Amino acid sequence: MNDVPVLHYDVDHEGDVSQLVYTFGGVEARASVKPGSILDTSSLDCFAGKVRSVHDHVSTVCDPRFLNPQTGPFFVEGAIPGDVLAVHFASIEPRSTLGFSTTVPLFGALTANGFTQMLHQPLPEMTWVYGIDKENRTVRYEARESSAVYRLPLDPMHGTVGVAPALNEARSALTPGDWGGNMDTPEMRAGVTCYLGVNVEGALFSFGDGHARQGEGETCGVAVETSMDTVMVIDLIKGVSPVLWPRLESDTEIMTTGSTKPLEDAFRISQVQMVQWVAQLTGLSIMDSYQFVSQTSLAPIANVVDTNYTVIAKIRKDFLPDVHPMNGVHRRLREMGQAYLATRR
Amino acid sequence: MNDVPVLHYDVDHEGDVSQLVYTFGGVEARASVKPGSILDTSSLDCFAGKVRSVHDHVSTVCDPRFLNPQTGPFFVEGAIPGDVLAVHFASIEPRSTLGFSTTVPLFGALTANGFTQMLHQPLPEMTWVYGIDKENRTVRYEARESSAVYRLPLDPMHGTVGVAPALNEARSALTPGDWGGNMDTPEMRAGVTCYLGVNVEGALFSFGDGHARQGEGETCGVAVETSMDTVMVIDLIKGVSPVLWPRLESDTEIMTTGSTKPLEDAFRISQVQMVQWVAQLTGLSIMDSYQFVSQTSLAPIANVVDTNYTVIAKIRKDFLPDVHPMNGVHRRLREMGQAYLATRR
Amino acid sequence: MNDVPVLHYDVDHEGDVSQLVYTFGGVEARASVKPGSILDTSSLDCFAGKVRSVHDHVSTVCDPRFLNPQTGPFFVEGAIPGDVLAVHFASIEPRSTLGFSTTVPLFGALTANGFTQMLHQPLPEMTWVYGIDKENRTVRYEARESSAVYRLPLDPMHGTVGVAPALNEARSALTPGDWGGNMDTPEMRAGVTCYLGVNVEGALFSFGDGHARQGEGETCGVAVETSMDTVMVIDLIKGVSPVLWPRLESDTEIMTTGSTKPLEDAFRISQVQMVQWVAQLTGLSIMDSYQFVSQTSLAPIANVVDTNYTVIAKIRKDFLPDVHPMNGVHRRLREMGQAYLATRR
Amino acid sequence: MNDVPVLHYDVDHEGDVSQLVYTFGGVEARASVKPGSILDTSSLDCFAGKVRSVHDHVSTVCDPRFLNPQTGPFFVEGAIPGDVLAVHFASIEPRSTLGFSTTVPLFGALTANGFTQMLHQPLPEMTWVYGIDKENRTVRYEARESSAVYRLPLDPMHGTVGVAPALNEARSALTPGDWGGNMDTPEMRAGVTCYLGVNVEGALFSFGDGHARQGEGETCGVAVETSMDTVMVIDLIKGVSPVLWPRLESDTEIMTTGSTKPLEDAFRISQVQMVQWVAQLTGLSIMDSYQFVSQTSLAPIANVVDTNYTVIAKIRKDFLPDVHPMNGVHRRLREMGQAYLATRR
Repeated sequence: MNDVPVLHYDVDHEGDVSQLVYTFGGVEARASVKPGSILDTSSLDCFAGKVRSVHDHVSTVCDPRFLNPQTGPFFVEGAIPGDVLAVHFASIEPRSTLGFSTTVPLFGALTANGFTQMLHQPLPEMTWVYGIDKENRTVRYEARESSAVYRLPLDPMHGTVGVAPALNEARSALTPGDWGGNMDTPEMRAGVTCYLGVNVEGALFSFGDGHARQGEGETCGVAVETSMDTVMVIDLIKGVSPVLWPRLESDTEIMTTGSTKPLEDAFRISQVQMVQWVAQLTGLSIMDSYQFVSQTSLAPIANVVDTNYTVIAKIRKDFLPDVHPMNGVHRRLREMGQAYLATRR
Repeated sequence: MNDVPVLHYDVDHEGDVSQLVYTFGGVEARASVKPGSILDTSSLDCFAGKVRSVHDHVSTVCDPRFLNPQTGPFFVEGAIPGDVLAVHFASIEPRSTLGFSTTVPLFGALTANGFTQMLHQPLPEMTWVYGIDKENRTVRYEARESSAVYRLPLDPMHGTVGVAPALNEARSALTPGDWGGNMDTPEMRAGVTCYLGVNVEGALFSFGDGHARQGEGETCGVAVETSMDTVMVIDLIKGVSPVLWPRLESDTEIMTTGSTKPLEDAFRISQVQMVQWVAQLTGLSIMDSYQFVSQTSLAPIANVVDTNYTVIAKIRKDFLPDVHPMNGVHRRLREMGQAYLATRR
Repeated sequence: MNDVPVLHYDVDHEGDVSQLVYTFGGVEARASVKPGSILDTSSLDCFAGKVRSVHDHVSTVCDPRFLNPQTGPFFVEGAIPGDVLAVHFASIEPRSTLGFSTTVPLFGALTANGFTQMLHQPLPEMTWVYGIDKENRTVRYEARESSAVYRLPLDPMHGTVGVAPALNEARSALTPGDWGGNMDTPEMRAGVTCYLGVNVEGALFSFGDGHARQGEGETCGVAVETSMDTVMVIDLIKGVSPVLWPRLESDTEIMTTGSTKPLEDAFRISQVQMVQWVAQLTGLSIMDSYQFVSQTSLAPIANVVDTNYTVIAKIRKDFLPDVHPMNGVHRRLREMGQAYLATRR
Repeated sequence: MNDVPVLHYDVDHEGDVSQLVYTFGGVEARASVKPGSILDTSSLDCFAGKVRSVHDHVSTVCDPRFLNPQTGPFFVEGAIPGDVLAVHFASIEPRSTLGFSTTVPLFGALTANGFTQMLHQPLPEMTWVYGIDKENRTVRYEARESSAVYRLPLDPMHGTVGVAPALNEARSALTPGDWGGNMDTPEMRAGVTCYLGVNVEGALFSFGDGHARQGEGETCGVAVETSMDTVMVIDLIKGVSPVLWPRLESDTEIMTTGSTKPLEDAFRISQVQMVQWVAQLTGLSIMDSYQFVSQTSLAPIANVVDTNYTVIAKIRKDFLPDVHPMNGVHRRLREMGQAYLATRR
């Protein structure tokens, strides 16, 4: 491991939140990273640390311009449009023993909101505080309107991972799309590699929005939000088919994503991407791949609350023996990540 | 088990398909069943057996009026509107060593269709034949346009389970809704209990559309279709809250369903039902339950191809210690089903 | 006019509402009508007359099983599947000097409802009473929470017009679809001919849901509801292309409809039908017709509140000189209707 | 009129298109304009002039980065977030005697596209050339696959009008939203005032995408595109309620807009804005306004092809006697515009 470059990138967790980054695109790179590097860094929670107790309401303590701060963007050396950026999450660990979830007025899947506009008054604004027990790998739910307590598995992940969009757009870190962004899928956990199509020179990768856990759909709009220490392995893949929408790979599954509205279009995008990927990996015709995917793909919803909705398509790799997605980069990055983590212990 | 009534209901698998049942509602009961009974019966495949080789195309060999034949309807003695019908699937086993999937012109999620109308010509119409190996619990995918073969897990289920709808409606067996119907969720497998709200006297339960397996979303519109031998335990629950949309329970999970368009409304229905169910089971307030469900619910898509789309909400029962959904009926029916199956072996 | 058959069909406006008809399909014909006949009849309002003052709330005074009573069904002699039923509205006149509109709990476009389920409490339930001035052709809006009064044009129409659906379905009179039904378009006014594809022998035509006026979208879910005296001319068109979705024709415009969810699919249906109709009327290729329709079609929304949403496509007939939709039946029926009305005065 | 400032802003119609502006937000102001000024300028067509005959296909002659060039942005002096920018269109006149429409592969409402992804091949790519007769106020449609010719009314308008978005976003000129942008409503014609909420200092207003005419929905995705000479009157309104979504006012109607997906949410936004506006203008309660709007609002669709869909709500001003939207600015700007045009003749 002596020759693997490591970028330690410090984030100021107590600083002026207006200095942080809240868009994909439209901001200058904060650091540069070589392909094949370890990136050892951290992220603030989506509230930029402003929610600290059940008495803190988002509408009171947060400035809407400064929600969901991102770490980055990182200029990936040599990245040009058409390349594929590989981001392997080696480790995602809560920095704190507390996580926070809230309702936010006119935000969420089961309430009138800024796009599904209605004449209702907002639901009550409330905050829940979760205890995070890293030892026992649990988070502790505590009801606000009774004394009920439940313990749930800790399952850390990043809600927001992406690059600068195409067409000179700058998109809020609250939005997911073909550049990645706020996809809010619980699949974005340690052990997974995320593939992102590069739209601009240097890719301009950033990430944030750590969740100690979330349900699929992120129904109330807010997961168990917490700051994270995160180790990634960053690489660049040249000469593969362009990745039009973000993809993921774990040891056991390949996944595609679609992020748009309505939700059926997000499903369609994820499935068409998967049909094309399976065809390319196996040599199946498009119609044969359509049939194969129809019988094998899982379709977990990621989010139905953000400005675009996200759906995942997921196929077990053991259904597809002898295929090597993205030239086998996942296994290689996974090993690099494990080796780096071993040196840190 | 001596005193458990058993209804052996014979289905004519070679008869005149126009004599079968193709709607929920609008047809007379074919048999009567007492609550607390075993129902030992079978179902035709969704093609009424007309597709038998790769050369058989649905548009040629099937009559659109006679797609998706249902077994039933069964008059459940004593059932009245407001009751909950419990249908436990003790066993679902393919009757044949072959299953069939197809594309159908202008039907499916990744093609223009009768509702998402476009100006495209239909995709090619094709049929795939799957070998079903009950011994090894696999189905064998065979590509049509190459020599590729893949083996996938056998995972038998029923796409269509329901009762007569409210408001004197009769709904095609191709449609899912609050009466159940063509939900096409792979969760409807052996070991699961399905709860259905009763809309009319006798409930008028029917079922069909066996799948040797399917992906979530049933993307091309057709699963691995096959006829099934099915053993159910039928019961009636009185005095619980009315079930407005179908629910499921396995040994490990509780599930709710929503079936409508757009897909986000199907999601919303499944999640609101789950928020209400968890609140009722735990005593949590609605807002506390909303928070709990947001962090714990899985949201697998069931179908995005039928005349309504279906989404599932699913929560692990071990997240909710000491709750007893539907007065514990699932465990009781499961034991009755196992005992009956033991007597048959 | 001596030889034009006239069916005077009496409706009991004070009778037992459970004897009325609340579905398309699933009910026996109440009367028989010959093609080329005048049908001189009337309809109850959608509340079956139960809402009579600002103090009457739908949830209190109406039985959900008996909403939106339809006049009919009428067996049209000689009608078989594939034919086109033409219904020309010669006259639609309010029977009363009062119309009623309401909010209904969890129903409407700007509130959580039975399909767009949310955790909100319902909006307030209220009733508005409109004075109908047939002399001056106005309806009088009177605010409930202030003293404001506005006068609006009287523009009588029928929200619900349809035939029995295909596939042996019986559909609630609250739902629109390819059989017509509760389309709730203000275009269904006197002077317009509605074309409906026949699905079953005799067509089984029925209609109801008179509105003294409504906005496009019928946003709160309820128009200015009132009982109507209605004169139609009924005819049957053989040997034209089948009409898959309801169409309308006025003296100045041709119109197509689409009714489904999401709303963009209703739009797509209406536009594809129009592209096909214009191609058929003009001999334009489909691509040329697509271009023509793109620059000429209006797209007013009809309803976004019913169990399916409805969109209209509308093209001015003077853009298409020398075309004769449906063999010129509209002009002929319009003249028959005018002649009949002249005899009545 | 001596004291009305006039900004003559020259656009280079033959220059390097990469120097033009293709986003709302993310670009520097090109000129500064005082409130109360005439802006006399012009715009390129959406193809930046690259489509010039039926042989020019968009996918061949256009660079996707340089579609839909905008004139501007203009820094409006004194504009700050919370203000309302009023843009009155005094005159919109085609600069050329030709307009162009096309199909674009995988773009449009009746084809699989980048968001409604499917497995179809694209529809044929074609270009139609329209003759524009300013004298007779017609455009001449000429079929490509037959000799048919139709004459349609000339009805010039701008598809794209907007300001810089909030949250530091930069949005492609192909997208509409709460900042305006590519709404593609035929209501944006001469004689109309558009109201836009200001998100950033100086507002950064720009506009473009002239259409000689278009249908509602812009179904094939492309109107009769042409470059325009346009005269606007620009003003700033302080101290009125913030305008959250673009609004329009003509001599006879007030209008609100909603731009998102699915289309029903665009409808909901436009209707909620209208309910709130009518309540504010009349003093009606929200429930009374909901009722009033339900019976009076028209709901024409604007576009179902862009990355967000747009719906209009429209109410006749004579239904609302004695109300003065936006302090009567429309009438004042209209008179200023007419006076300026009179001086030019």
